[in-house]
Amino acid sequence: MPFVNIKITNEGVTPEKKEQLISGATQLLVDVLGKNPKTTVVIIDEVDTDNWGLGGESVSTRRKRGD
Amino acid sequence: MPFVNIKITNEGVTPEKKEQLISGATQLLVDVLGKNPKTTVVIIDEVDTDNWGLGGESVSTRRKRGD
Amino acid sequence: MPFVNIKITNEGVTPEKKEQLISGATQLLVDVLGKNPKTTVVIIDEVDTDNWGLGGESVSTRRKRGD
Amino acid sequence: MPFVNIKITNEGVTPEKKEQLISGATQLLVDVLGKNPKTTVVIIDEVDTDNWGLGGESVSTRRKRGD
Amino acid sequence: MPFVNIKITNEGVTPEKKEQLISGATQLLVDVLGKNPKTTVVIIDEVDTDNWGLGGESVSTRRKRGD
Amino acid sequence: MPFVNIKITNEGVTPEKKEQLISGATQLLVDVLGKNPKTTVVIIDEVDTDNWGLGGESVSTRRKRGD
Repeated sequence: MPFVNIKITNEGVTPEKKEQLISGATQLLVDVLGKNPKTTVVIIDEVDTDNWGLGGESVSTRRKRGD
Repeated sequence: MPFVNIKITNEGVTPEKKEQLISGATQLLVDVLGKNPKTTVVIIDEVDTDNWGLGGESVSTRRKRGD
Repeated sequence: MPFVNIKITNEGVTPEKKEQLISGATQLLVDVLGKNPKTTVVIIDEVDTDNWGLGGESVSTRRKRGD
Repeated sequence: MPFVNIKITNEGVTPEKKEQLISGATQLLVDVLGKNPKTTVVIIDEVDTDNWGLGGESVSTRRKRGD
Repeated sequence: MPFVNIKITNEGVTPEKKEQLISGATQLLVDVLGKNPKTTVVIIDEVDTDNWGLGGESVSTRRKRGD
Repeated sequence: MPFVNIKITNEGVTPEKKEQLISGATQLLVDVLGKNPKTTVVIIDEVDTDNWGLGGESVSTRRKRGD
């Protein structure tokens, strides 16, 4: 029944990697809290680098500068 | 003034169905709590089936298996 | 499998009212999109009126003014 | 370390405007609470007007009517 | 820079368990996507069982029935 | 109509500071995007330092170490 939301930048994450995030997050809830995996929901949000800010500027701008 | 967020998988939901979700959720807040519909916000997030996990695997994988 | 989040101000909502919000939101997803109620999650967030802003000021301030 | 999420309708917001939202929200947290801008995260969600409801109907419908 | 939000019911989760959720979720992002742990944020929301619905009824009601 | 959610640690933020966050975030949306302040919603979530993780550990643990 837990709900996990993972927000990452939209930079070519493959379906295989997404499966690993989903299974890993679900297993974490099972291992730490004994939650039922069948009703554990994981939602991955991929956010455009223009729309993600860190340190007062977008990740797009940071990437252009080489950060 | 209430805020409702509905997350569903991105599987061909029509604008008409979305209108029904919006009007239905707004009416629910009016009926149960007497909220003002004019300032009630409803946001629908459509999530790719690769990005939605249930039972430790993506909905894409579940759909392929016939679940 | 849908996920619904309802945010309302924290002003004495009874457990009975919460049950009505949960059952109503779940039924809405069943009626409009044919979703499975068994895996539909509804989470209600009750937000302090100091922490909810509308029109550039908190609901606490609005209430004091009689809005 | 604060986290700010801004949800707006998806109506042609330019990268320059997004930079202003990111820098402005980050500066707000610095000015009001003395937060560290380096670890302040801002995420902008652009929502389709079909998926945003206000007053019991979608923004798409409101726009068509001239609201 | 990733952001992880974990929502669970408010049923006596200890600080030690919370540390395990935080370190485990952070490590998952490092292992799967090579993310920087220093800027990875994890927020745990503990939700009252009256406010969490599954299957059209609150978890409080389900617990009373022995589910 | 925009919606802004600000998540901060729960460390004695006064109602006056909250008012400044609400008015500042609302004004930002007016200034940058010309949004209507009357329907702009701001919600502040105060998160316990045990429940906020950065760098793989809780803020409570970081504070104890003097970070």
